[in-house]
Amino acid sequence: MRALVYLGRGRIGVEERPQPTVQRATDAVVRIVRSTICGTDLHILKGDVATCSSGRILGHEGTGVVESVGAAVVGFAPGDRVLISCITACGLCPACRQGMPSHCATGGWILGNTIDGTQADFVRIPHATSSLHALPADVDDEAAVMLSDILPTGFECGVANGRIAPGGTVAIVGSGPIGLATLLTAQFYTPSRIIMIDLDDHRLEVARALGATDVVNSATGDAAAAVQLLTDGRGVDTAIEAVGVPDTFRLCERIVAAGGVIANIGVHGKPVELHLETLWSHNVTITTRLVDAVSTPMLLRTVRAHRLDPRRLVTHRFPMHDILAAYDTFGRAAATKALKVVLEA
Amino acid sequence: MRALVYLGRGRIGVEERPQPTVQRATDAVVRIVRSTICGTDLHILKGDVATCSSGRILGHEGTGVVESVGAAVVGFAPGDRVLISCITACGLCPACRQGMPSHCATGGWILGNTIDGTQADFVRIPHATSSLHALPADVDDEAAVMLSDILPTGFECGVANGRIAPGGTVAIVGSGPIGLATLLTAQFYTPSRIIMIDLDDHRLEVARALGATDVVNSATGDAAAAVQLLTDGRGVDTAIEAVGVPDTFRLCERIVAAGGVIANIGVHGKPVELHLETLWSHNVTITTRLVDAVSTPMLLRTVRAHRLDPRRLVTHRFPMHDILAAYDTFGRAAATKALKVVLEA
Amino acid sequence: MRALVYLGRGRIGVEERPQPTVQRATDAVVRIVRSTICGTDLHILKGDVATCSSGRILGHEGTGVVESVGAAVVGFAPGDRVLISCITACGLCPACRQGMPSHCATGGWILGNTIDGTQADFVRIPHATSSLHALPADVDDEAAVMLSDILPTGFECGVANGRIAPGGTVAIVGSGPIGLATLLTAQFYTPSRIIMIDLDDHRLEVARALGATDVVNSATGDAAAAVQLLTDGRGVDTAIEAVGVPDTFRLCERIVAAGGVIANIGVHGKPVELHLETLWSHNVTITTRLVDAVSTPMLLRTVRAHRLDPRRLVTHRFPMHDILAAYDTFGRAAATKALKVVLEA
Amino acid sequence: MRALVYLGRGRIGVEERPQPTVQRATDAVVRIVRSTICGTDLHILKGDVATCSSGRILGHEGTGVVESVGAAVVGFAPGDRVLISCITACGLCPACRQGMPSHCATGGWILGNTIDGTQADFVRIPHATSSLHALPADVDDEAAVMLSDILPTGFECGVANGRIAPGGTVAIVGSGPIGLATLLTAQFYTPSRIIMIDLDDHRLEVARALGATDVVNSATGDAAAAVQLLTDGRGVDTAIEAVGVPDTFRLCERIVAAGGVIANIGVHGKPVELHLETLWSHNVTITTRLVDAVSTPMLLRTVRAHRLDPRRLVTHRFPMHDILAAYDTFGRAAATKALKVVLEA
Repeated sequence: MRALVYLGRGRIGVEERPQPTVQRATDAVVRIVRSTICGTDLHILKGDVATCSSGRILGHEGTGVVESVGAAVVGFAPGDRVLISCITACGLCPACRQGMPSHCATGGWILGNTIDGTQADFVRIPHATSSLHALPADVDDEAAVMLSDILPTGFECGVANGRIAPGGTVAIVGSGPIGLATLLTAQFYTPSRIIMIDLDDHRLEVARALGATDVVNSATGDAAAAVQLLTDGRGVDTAIEAVGVPDTFRLCERIVAAGGVIANIGVHGKPVELHLETLWSHNVTITTRLVDAVSTPMLLRTVRAHRLDPRRLVTHRFPMHDILAAYDTFGRAAATKALKVVLEA
Repeated sequence: MRALVYLGRGRIGVEERPQPTVQRATDAVVRIVRSTICGTDLHILKGDVATCSSGRILGHEGTGVVESVGAAVVGFAPGDRVLISCITACGLCPACRQGMPSHCATGGWILGNTIDGTQADFVRIPHATSSLHALPADVDDEAAVMLSDILPTGFECGVANGRIAPGGTVAIVGSGPIGLATLLTAQFYTPSRIIMIDLDDHRLEVARALGATDVVNSATGDAAAAVQLLTDGRGVDTAIEAVGVPDTFRLCERIVAAGGVIANIGVHGKPVELHLETLWSHNVTITTRLVDAVSTPMLLRTVRAHRLDPRRLVTHRFPMHDILAAYDTFGRAAATKALKVVLEA
Repeated sequence: MRALVYLGRGRIGVEERPQPTVQRATDAVVRIVRSTICGTDLHILKGDVATCSSGRILGHEGTGVVESVGAAVVGFAPGDRVLISCITACGLCPACRQGMPSHCATGGWILGNTIDGTQADFVRIPHATSSLHALPADVDDEAAVMLSDILPTGFECGVANGRIAPGGTVAIVGSGPIGLATLLTAQFYTPSRIIMIDLDDHRLEVARALGATDVVNSATGDAAAAVQLLTDGRGVDTAIEAVGVPDTFRLCERIVAAGGVIANIGVHGKPVELHLETLWSHNVTITTRLVDAVSTPMLLRTVRAHRLDPRRLVTHRFPMHDILAAYDTFGRAAATKALKVVLEA
Repeated sequence: MRALVYLGRGRIGVEERPQPTVQRATDAVVRIVRSTICGTDLHILKGDVATCSSGRILGHEGTGVVESVGAAVVGFAPGDRVLISCITACGLCPACRQGMPSHCATGGWILGNTIDGTQADFVRIPHATSSLHALPADVDDEAAVMLSDILPTGFECGVANGRIAPGGTVAIVGSGPIGLATLLTAQFYTPSRIIMIDLDDHRLEVARALGATDVVNSATGDAAAAVQLLTDGRGVDTAIEAVGVPDTFRLCERIVAAGGVIANIGVHGKPVELHLETLWSHNVTITTRLVDAVSTPMLLRTVRAHRLDPRRLVTHRFPMHDILAAYDTFGRAAATKALKVVLEA
């Protein structure tokens, strides 16, 4: 089969690889129908993810059709349409039992990282019983592939951790794919105001079309002052960090109201300064989270009920054999205006 | 009356002052029976609290007897024994209604800070209806004065924010009065392990006597390694910062388990480094809080039910007229082994 | 002034009464601009509310303009536009402090019950500081008067107690004004399905227009079977009782899923059977609640943010001097298709 | 092997049966070291449990040593000491994933009910990975066997559902084994008052020894009045039903405070009257629950930390071959003063 392979810092290529097979009784092999590229794949490409070695097939998002299953797999059979979760979960270890499969003893984020991933014709999925989701006939693959990672991430790390509530005020710092996925699911809770902050006017326009009540371009002024103005000087109940650099975290510190929450989603490469000399008395909560993908069944229900349309995040589509072009488009997002780029088998 | 007055950086003195009177219908005047000195009073003395001007009567903890009440005060009459909360709460503003009187629009921590405080023969208490608590006959003043500040602070900022739970593991960094108050109330939730960390062996001995299951002297080894050893390499579910300097916050970051909480109590004077480059994926929660003193009625019930003995925090007692000696003893705690120093009228 | 007065079982009349005045420092007097009639007023009329004596001015809903305030009232002045809460809250007693002003020691539901109410030209509001809400200029009186009682009741007793969540399934039994208010606010949480159940096809049509995903007429078939069919045999996560008779409660017991909630809103006149012989092992929660009106500030924010349009509940408008005609229209709702009937000063 | 077999209403006997073997890859076979008899076993004996057929080996509590495991069992090997949970959990179905394995699609309470149980020399445990718990060397079998059912049941259905909190007031109606298990674990949360109610003075004496602050014999007076007296007329924050008949549920309705919880544990055979004509406005919560046994790891930690001594519930010990004598003793508990009766292999 063909696969997109990481070849060391800065290099990827399409290679011919043997089709994966069931190795353990709990494995399934899935023929990929749709995949997509994640910002994390670009991090790997930059050499920032030490756990991912050269030779690895990338990709942790996908939908497909079950090709074969091990003897211990429950609930899935060859021919079933499935959604692949970016988080592999045994379902049975202490972390899984406490609802935190991101820290599963034998799973977590391993696909396209420590084992081969979904940017290929086929993929082997360990712990298939609790790492796949059956796809109902009324959910198409393009919508579903947005539920592998980006929508559970926005929802769990941003919306749920951020305790967004009816009538509340929210600022989302970063209007890229993950910020926009957060924006879509933030609306589940009917906040009165969702302020989107970014440096790129196009992305802010998209944010407005997807439901932001206010947008602030932080390149052209004091974003913190703008947020204070929009909130009568109170600051926001929830500030969501969806970039991953010190400046955007600092902005969150400056705009969170007393009693509010800073929910971090961004993948950070270095420490940030936490201004406890003022925040110690501000009754704030700061959360971090690697997505657990425990909200996926709920998200599927909202898609089926037409309460969430994940396809609004998709800007580009490529055949799987053009995956290098897809990487190029996604990698130059400012120029191409790419959000999510879907790969079609 | 006599009062302990802040005279500018590094200076305090006992002065004669006029007895306070009711100024608004919601005020009460209380004759002090017991007061005490808080670490925050020492901060003021160092000139670290910009809101507190020279000439201010210090003190935000006390018990006493109601001397007079304004026309709008409900539930209190002259002669009633009362506990004075360190937090003045109108009970009616948005912050108070959302359970956060620390940020009351016309209250919060004002006693001994922006208005005259309790280290005097009498004190005026604004918003008396919701800032005083009736003292039942079976609660003595010395126990009660520990409920003005230190016990609600340890409980709310450390124990409640830290989500301490049965069977959980807790580390408290700092075995001073506030850390020990946290230790006492942490036991309300029956954690399986409470590890106390400090530089002072004497304070660690006290911690063990007050219920710590393990103690670690961070002066004589790698405290983080010691905690990992005690928790089978998992780290603790709850790490409580009860000092207020970067090193102790850093220690909390190193010992908190995935999915755990860092609950900050310490009053910080400068920023700390937050290591998001590792913590972003550790599913941790960090909380800050100025005490709201909303747990005081609950704490009073636990004292009455003999589930909490606040007097275990008291090491020294002074007549109010020896308050300068009391400050001296409290200020040299390492040498005097002082924890809480009670002032007796 | 003119007022609608309860004259004993089955009788009401419009009478001339002296204009109320401030009696305590915490009182305000409000000139009524809008009022409305509640199902509870009809209960009083039937003689079902023992606490309400003959001679009482009815009404616990209203908006208006402050006429005068007592010396201790904070935040309101003559001329201010205000919303009157159906719950009078001192804000300071133990019940109020624990967020349950429905059981306020000197308040609760007293307006138009144990003290004179809002169906008059003027009304005296005790504990005005925490029982009135300032009306922003962009909220009109007709929308606001729906926030006196019916919307907080639907939200607090039904939606919040019912733990409605994104993707969940909800059934609301009773499509009268309170059921419809619940329906409007249930959508704050984006459930995947809201099934409305009633005997009246017209009310079910209204429900569909207001957001119900499914409607079931329980007069023409087995409503429980219909709900099971709509939920793949699981039952609903949340069943809301919005009628107040044994049959509708029984229906809730039959349709709630394992792990689900029955949230009672209905005012019941007699006991119901609780089928613990099956429910004991079904992990269900049953809640009851007299509205606390603690959600009113949040509801005002959602109205201002155009997330909630309370006027959709209003079917009829009458000048205040035609209040007897308004009672007649509201009392014959099946024939008149009345939902909420607004009285205009 | 020998086994205690249900022979139809009113009849049990010891029979020789073939030793069970692994049937599915997820099974384990356990050699029993300790077992015990549950009130539910007596219900079966009375013919009250329709799912349990004649010929069934009874028993859903036990500890032992793993004899053999299927190929898919993770974390357990022959020779391991284990605790058997009364709830069999696949860990992977929707109910298990939402933390409710009591309603597991292929598990739940099946041991000694729909499949053969633990009152035998050996037992087959389906879904062994998530239905067994490793026993640390420092937890002896007699303590551990109390964690199969009775302690998680008291904790989850009574204490956790009842939201017991520091300083709160609790009444437990029924001082039998399950009520006493609730009493032991209620103390995890340091309520100020735990009132135990029963008809049997001996059981009330035991309750006092195990930590009840007050006891009320409901045979000799008005228990509701006694509770009101002990709570200054407020009623209790948490009323726990640990019997399973209408009278005891009724008592809970009469003693629960406004805003409080009735947590039902009792297995009921018929409906109860729910007095919604008064409770509708009392802001109460009523919960039911079949134990999920999700708290077992936590309970093991509290045992290891010497915070819980389960052996205090054990009154009698019998060799397994005397199990008929054990049933006789347990069945005549009033006369024999039996609480938990341990069977020793």
